Amino acid sequence: MYKIVLIGAGNVATHLLAAFYNSQNTKVVQVYSRNTEVGKILSKKYDVIATDKFDYLVNADLYLICVSDYAIPEVSNLLPFEGKLVAHTSGATDISAINSKNRMAVFYPLQSFSNGVDIDFSPIPICIEALNSDDLKLLFEIGKSISSSVQEISSKQRQLLHISAVFVNNFVNHILYIANDLANHNGVNFDLLKPIIEETISKAIKKTPLNTQTGPAMRGDTDTIKKHLRNIQNDNYRKIYELISKSILDTYA
Amino acid sequence: MYKIVLIGAGNVATHLLAAFYNSQNTKVVQVYSRNTEVGKILSKKYDVIATDKFDYLVNADLYLICVSDYAIPEVSNLLPFEGKLVAHTSGATDISAINSKNRMAVFYPLQSFSNGVDIDFSPIPICIEALNSDDLKLLFEIGKSISSSVQEISSKQRQLLHISAVFVNNFVNHILYIANDLANHNGVNFDLLKPIIEETISKAIKKTPLNTQTGPAMRGDTDTIKKHLRNIQNDNYRKIYELISKSILDTYA
Repeated sequence: MYKIVLIGAGNVATHLLAAFYNSQNTKVVQVYSRNTEVGKILSKKYDVIATDKFDYLVNADLYLICVSDYAIPEVSNLLPFEGKLVAHTSGATDISAINSKNRMAVFYPLQSFSNGVDIDFSPIPICIEALNSDDLKLLFEIGKSISSSVQEISSKQRQLLHISAVFVNNFVNHILYIANDLANHNGVNFDLLKPIIEETISKAIKKTPLNTQTGPAMRGDTDTIKKHLRNIQNDNYRKIYELISKSILDTYA
Repeated sequence: MYKIVLIGAGNVATHLLAAFYNSQNTKVVQVYSRNTEVGKILSKKYDVIATDKFDYLVNADLYLICVSDYAIPEVSNLLPFEGKLVAHTSGATDISAINSKNRMAVFYPLQSFSNGVDIDFSPIPICIEALNSDDLKLLFEIGKSISSSVQEISSKQRQLLHISAVFVNNFVNHILYIANDLANHNGVNFDLLKPIIEETISKAIKKTPLNTQTGPAMRGDTDTIKKHLRNIQNDNYRKIYELISKSILDTYA
């Protein structure tokens, strides 16, 4: 049974807490939350000790820092112990953000977590990194207790992978938002677009996005592209339409 | 039993043929294909008469033109009859592209069809347009025979809706392609990104994309944005990253 202390009480911490709570091989022995009210709620829901003081942190096999990227160095500096395994959970942050008085590591679940949306952890890739093979093995075992996909990924690779994640999550979501906004202005229900959205993703995942591209830009249909551009009022949206169309044209040229 | 003649033998025609073939209330009595080989294959598979001559077209309740947008006027001019119900199946094309010697109409299935990918037609919205209520009623009944969602949509609305469809299908697919390409260059398997892609879509559809936005741009995290931009070599990709990030910032400002 691996003992884990979670530091932070936001989305990532809460989802990890739920996942570890349902696992046989791991136990979250403590949650650190700056906000004592949030700490109390998690404490009750997951039968775990909460604290708002770093000095009260108990012994564990792994300390998981689940805070905003910018706060990782400060929080890791404040830990009142040395030589322990301390991992952050950020995609965009180098392993060296952890103070080297402890054994630096990374435990990054490649997923987008939202407050109040339950999620099945088992397919979520967990990208791990550590400075020696023993720590790596420990992270691997702990990862395996909640996910079927645990991968060793270097800081450099993870930061590049995080860029891909920004494209598929943040940018795809914003493209859907734009379509929704255009539909609203057009007096059409966004629901009409849901079947084509689902089919788009299903096909791109079954085949590969390179082979599932269709549309005016792919066909080099400049008449339709021009007609569409004339009909888009919002400057950002029109520029995005132009630029992605150009990128599609360049990809298949 | 409504009699339909399909004109064209590409993706849209083939998928419509399969859908009508499985419906009780409609029968495709003939398929026009320029290419006699393709006509023969469809003829065998769906037990339908094929022809490559407009002069041989038989009597029907509806003639569905399923050809490239630019070819719709020419094909509708070539039809050797008058006063019949003739619809095109294009999202981007005005109803007036049909020669007015016949009763102009539109029958646009809002979906992305790929060769060889079977599809369940029932959730696909069919956007119909006609010049009088009798024709509209007929299109509605024929649409209902293959789909649970038949909507009257004007030419203006349909062309704007088609822009939204380009965003959610063509542009989302290209964004996934970029992520795939970046992952390949990074030596990381695109499969790692599939769970977050599926979660992104599932959340945006259950809630709304406005409420599911996350990421550096949404948080105003310019440090991460700058770090990402430094790591993207491809000019188009970097400009797309910059522009969508700006649009996200402007949306939530």
